[in-house]
Amino acid sequence: MAGNSFGNIFKLTTFGESHGPALGGVIDGCPPGIKLDLDFIESEMQRRKPGQSSIVTQRKEEDSVQFYSGIFEGKTTGTPIGFLIHNKDQKSKDYSHIKDTYRPSHADFVYDKKYGHRDYRGGGRSSARETASRVVAGAIAKQILEGIEITAHVSSVGEIKVDTHYSKLDFSTIENNPVRCADPKTAVEMESFIKQIRKEGDTVGGEVSCVIENCPIGLGEPVFDKLHAELGKAMLSINAVKGFEYGSGFDGSKLKGSQHNDSFNSDGKTETNNSGGIQGGISNGMDIYFNVAFKPVATIMKSQKTIDSNNNEVEMKGKGRHDPCVVPRAVPIVEAMAALVLVDYLLINKLYK
Amino acid sequence: MAGNSFGNIFKLTTFGESHGPALGGVIDGCPPGIKLDLDFIESEMQRRKPGQSSIVTQRKEEDSVQFYSGIFEGKTTGTPIGFLIHNKDQKSKDYSHIKDTYRPSHADFVYDKKYGHRDYRGGGRSSARETASRVVAGAIAKQILEGIEITAHVSSVGEIKVDTHYSKLDFSTIENNPVRCADPKTAVEMESFIKQIRKEGDTVGGEVSCVIENCPIGLGEPVFDKLHAELGKAMLSINAVKGFEYGSGFDGSKLKGSQHNDSFNSDGKTETNNSGGIQGGISNGMDIYFNVAFKPVATIMKSQKTIDSNNNEVEMKGKGRHDPCVVPRAVPIVEAMAALVLVDYLLINKLYK
Amino acid sequence: MAGNSFGNIFKLTTFGESHGPALGGVIDGCPPGIKLDLDFIESEMQRRKPGQSSIVTQRKEEDSVQFYSGIFEGKTTGTPIGFLIHNKDQKSKDYSHIKDTYRPSHADFVYDKKYGHRDYRGGGRSSARETASRVVAGAIAKQILEGIEITAHVSSVGEIKVDTHYSKLDFSTIENNPVRCADPKTAVEMESFIKQIRKEGDTVGGEVSCVIENCPIGLGEPVFDKLHAELGKAMLSINAVKGFEYGSGFDGSKLKGSQHNDSFNSDGKTETNNSGGIQGGISNGMDIYFNVAFKPVATIMKSQKTIDSNNNEVEMKGKGRHDPCVVPRAVPIVEAMAALVLVDYLLINKLYK
Amino acid sequence: MAGNSFGNIFKLTTFGESHGPALGGVIDGCPPGIKLDLDFIESEMQRRKPGQSSIVTQRKEEDSVQFYSGIFEGKTTGTPIGFLIHNKDQKSKDYSHIKDTYRPSHADFVYDKKYGHRDYRGGGRSSARETASRVVAGAIAKQILEGIEITAHVSSVGEIKVDTHYSKLDFSTIENNPVRCADPKTAVEMESFIKQIRKEGDTVGGEVSCVIENCPIGLGEPVFDKLHAELGKAMLSINAVKGFEYGSGFDGSKLKGSQHNDSFNSDGKTETNNSGGIQGGISNGMDIYFNVAFKPVATIMKSQKTIDSNNNEVEMKGKGRHDPCVVPRAVPIVEAMAALVLVDYLLINKLYK
Repeated sequence: MAGNSFGNIFKLTTFGESHGPALGGVIDGCPPGIKLDLDFIESEMQRRKPGQSSIVTQRKEEDSVQFYSGIFEGKTTGTPIGFLIHNKDQKSKDYSHIKDTYRPSHADFVYDKKYGHRDYRGGGRSSARETASRVVAGAIAKQILEGIEITAHVSSVGEIKVDTHYSKLDFSTIENNPVRCADPKTAVEMESFIKQIRKEGDTVGGEVSCVIENCPIGLGEPVFDKLHAELGKAMLSINAVKGFEYGSGFDGSKLKGSQHNDSFNSDGKTETNNSGGIQGGISNGMDIYFNVAFKPVATIMKSQKTIDSNNNEVEMKGKGRHDPCVVPRAVPIVEAMAALVLVDYLLINKLYK
Repeated sequence: MAGNSFGNIFKLTTFGESHGPALGGVIDGCPPGIKLDLDFIESEMQRRKPGQSSIVTQRKEEDSVQFYSGIFEGKTTGTPIGFLIHNKDQKSKDYSHIKDTYRPSHADFVYDKKYGHRDYRGGGRSSARETASRVVAGAIAKQILEGIEITAHVSSVGEIKVDTHYSKLDFSTIENNPVRCADPKTAVEMESFIKQIRKEGDTVGGEVSCVIENCPIGLGEPVFDKLHAELGKAMLSINAVKGFEYGSGFDGSKLKGSQHNDSFNSDGKTETNNSGGIQGGISNGMDIYFNVAFKPVATIMKSQKTIDSNNNEVEMKGKGRHDPCVVPRAVPIVEAMAALVLVDYLLINKLYK
Repeated sequence: MAGNSFGNIFKLTTFGESHGPALGGVIDGCPPGIKLDLDFIESEMQRRKPGQSSIVTQRKEEDSVQFYSGIFEGKTTGTPIGFLIHNKDQKSKDYSHIKDTYRPSHADFVYDKKYGHRDYRGGGRSSARETASRVVAGAIAKQILEGIEITAHVSSVGEIKVDTHYSKLDFSTIENNPVRCADPKTAVEMESFIKQIRKEGDTVGGEVSCVIENCPIGLGEPVFDKLHAELGKAMLSINAVKGFEYGSGFDGSKLKGSQHNDSFNSDGKTETNNSGGIQGGISNGMDIYFNVAFKPVATIMKSQKTIDSNNNEVEMKGKGRHDPCVVPRAVPIVEAMAALVLVDYLLINKLYK
Repeated sequence: MAGNSFGNIFKLTTFGESHGPALGGVIDGCPPGIKLDLDFIESEMQRRKPGQSSIVTQRKEEDSVQFYSGIFEGKTTGTPIGFLIHNKDQKSKDYSHIKDTYRPSHADFVYDKKYGHRDYRGGGRSSARETASRVVAGAIAKQILEGIEITAHVSSVGEIKVDTHYSKLDFSTIENNPVRCADPKTAVEMESFIKQIRKEGDTVGGEVSCVIENCPIGLGEPVFDKLHAELGKAMLSINAVKGFEYGSGFDGSKLKGSQHNDSFNSDGKTETNNSGGIQGGISNGMDIYFNVAFKPVATIMKSQKTIDSNNNEVEMKGKGRHDPCVVPRAVPIVEAMAALVLVDYLLINKLYK
């Protein structure tokens, strides 16, 4: 029941704490005969890792993955793929200040209550470092999804929001700015805002928007495992996510049916796409698009009132480096989770052939 | 893989088409020895059924559930609970007009493409009538969740929105108005708006907000099966849902960490509750609250351009009764799905004792 | 966790007690577009039902299945197939004598200890009547397995055993004798022995042997879900089963490697088939064959010493009709469970295409 | 669907090929707060590893496990436990002779047909070396099963069989002889027979018998996940296993009900134990006992006729060291799999409290 596996056919199980010797994972159900581009996997990991630019945390993590099984002579064998990402720099740093202190809006308190015993160093299992394993699996999934394009970018930071419809953005610019925003002008504003937030010792949230192009018709398993329900769960499982909407989303709830319905053209495509590429839980061949809301990182460089495990009130303040805005680094994680859902549902769809 | 089961321990499997002889379900994993109030189950079904008021569809469905197993001498036995809800009024009505026509923003097109062969009468399996089985299971779940209160209400219809914080609403008024809105004044506005929409032959979307009080600390299974991820999937699996947010939600992404963090009080409770009762995917004992966005019903009494299965362009127009706003009837479904998640995670938590 | 589902892709969930209003099941994951022969399903149910011949119980069960979903215009739709088998003759018979008495070698005692509350009438959920639902699902599975032949027969009753290798038996004779033994001469002996046992008010065990012909190469999911491991679990889940062996089985453990190894011929077939059609957990295209051991039915017409729920020693004696040898009726159940495993693994194998 | 996971709550996923850099596994669902004795884990691995005595293979494997997560300050944290067992001596040995040759009664042929692409070195994933990961997990499971005693021993080798009932054997002698047989006199015969078989370049099969003492009443999840059905699957998933029987087993099928039934004593225990500690799929508090049949190892030092991947007939002969009888080394594997089933079902049983 412990929820460390994701997927039905293409199933990822992750393990590892932020300050243990290594993180890792096992992918069971990867089809055999897939030629893997290991450099691509490393490049995806580089996109997620800390210390890439001036607007994310300066903490260094030399992320590199080592595979132990399931790959032979450069190709997958259909047997489980086991991998590790070593935590190279886990020094015997002093964590005594958080050992018994429950950081506000962190998982310390609930892990203690639920499990009784936890690795408190750097958040342990609840650290977003766990998502490195997801990016590895996602990078493999992407290689199976040939032809299906998954592109995420930062569409808002704080109150700064991209107003342009995604179809008018040039996704090839995303990696050109440290915010990973597809609208270069807004990206500049965002970057400068994040720098200011950093100076304040504060953090800020934002949204990641994702578009999936060329998804075949027919993916999704109603009534409970609708494609968007699984995408939603995938996104909500990422650290710091507070909301998910697809297609017309929350704004769609304000519309009338006559405004919202997507008329069919004679080629089976729809004139509008308020449905967001999914009808009745099944992909209809149009672009799938969705937004994911991230709260601001909880660790701030400001003094905060909190309690320790004996319910004593204490003051605490983050030390060292902090991550003023996690959203740019969340872009590859959103893509990875989308890729995991898609490859899983694409495989499920083989059952109908 | 076919996705007609929900839950890990308390597992509901549903079956049935809107115009077949019956819908039904099986609940496996219900604990033994639970004394069931069958009248309560019926009353929950009455809240969902069509024809309750002037602002929902006038179609009559004499919903009543019949149990076949798993209950003996009024109490659950721990063996699977099988039940049927007969479709009493399925007349040999003429469905030939939709047999080969893909209604806009309905699942007709994708079901045809995915399965090749479908029961086209009234939407078949994709009809929201399937949620009747969820309400039955949810009504059983609620009886196990003694002390945990799950309350949903309609918080917006079109552009009309309740502005008051939920803590200042009187939930006991929800069933007093046909909209099921906890703010009587806004309810009146909503009702009148829905009546106008009905006259136009149109439909409108809205939001359902749900609050879970007295949830114990510790529910949720990171890293993938976080409590809010499972709640999100549960809600997104309901027909017509386009978005899910919990706690601070999408608005939370605009905030700074210093604004968003929930400080602990000495009793382990938090001063604010932007976290929405869940931290790191685990309930922290505060109220859990979330919003669910519903698109407008696709069936409108207006002429629409669409195609048939041979890709010929055709015009179609809904006939007979229509449901101008499904959101009031979605309230018990949202509660039912929340109850299913909670009872499942409450049972999982027994594994840690 | 409650174990009332079987299968991964083609998944059967059963429900129902022997003396409740009905038994039933749901099949999720049945491929769409399968034309179903409902008469065949009924005929399979007739093979299992009591009262067919002089050597099984004379209890009458008018078994007939009613389908509620998943089938439209004679073909499966890919949506879940829900069905009921009504328990027509459940009279308000007096069960007070077993209400509080734990029948020897029955499940009364353990159900009481595990669940606390149980339907004690006629064994309730632990009754072999539950297997009627398996036969329904198996009869559907068989229709999907076109070309794959699954044939079971009674190969031993008590000490009376068929000595001939299965390849020399004429399977078309199986239904010609009430024992369902493919060796007509041995069948006569068995029948006469069972009649004697019946007169004694006693019961006797036996073995069912099953052969699967024309199974394609490649079914089985190592390392845990090997084809024979799943077949073994399937068989061991049938009431009264005490053992499972495939290929050379227990006798194979006495052999040397040089005797046991199956040499390959140039066509990829093997000269001998000690492997039983499965190597490393994967079918190799040769016949799959296995034996299933059934203990004697526990209900005997003789006085037995036992205890009641207060641990008082009591005497009890079976009343009315009894089943001297369940093995002939187990034949269609063994076939049904084999068919469920095969159709499930055949579907899984589509994932590798 | 790929079958590399075992268990429902306490779930082991294994990965790794015999000649890759490492084998390993992840245990998800291990309860938190368990103090682990790592030396015990190593000692269990020593029991399984090759080269322990003169009657098993002399191949050396320096098995040692390294844990990466889920354990903190000597205790489990409830988060997944990831581990590796490095394959230290995988030299760049020449495997070209088996690359394209299908060894008789090995999995080479079926892996090639199923997956298309495989690691052919030393059997790859189909090698029994995979069971090392099971022994690690089993050794953790045993530490959770305090008070429940699982003891396996070799009860037959070829035609040589222990005739004494297990209750009269002294299990403390098992590790005193290289065969791991609890009957010292028979052990001597077995050892001498295995030495002769080794000289012949041949191999021989045998049986492992296992007894579980002090199992609490109530474990098992009917109707499909009966305790013995899961034990059976667990055993049948071990390399080379051909059969499983529990309690009276195959011999029980020869008996009459009046001989087979286990009468209750006034303390709820039964006078006899033909049921093998399980009634209706649920443990009844008596000893659970079962037998597992192993075929002879397929690799023999004799010339054999076989084919290559182009269907050419070829001769092949095993080289180097061989394992004349794998049964002694299977003893800890049988125990490990039994421990995995028991801990899983013990955890499931918490759901009923």
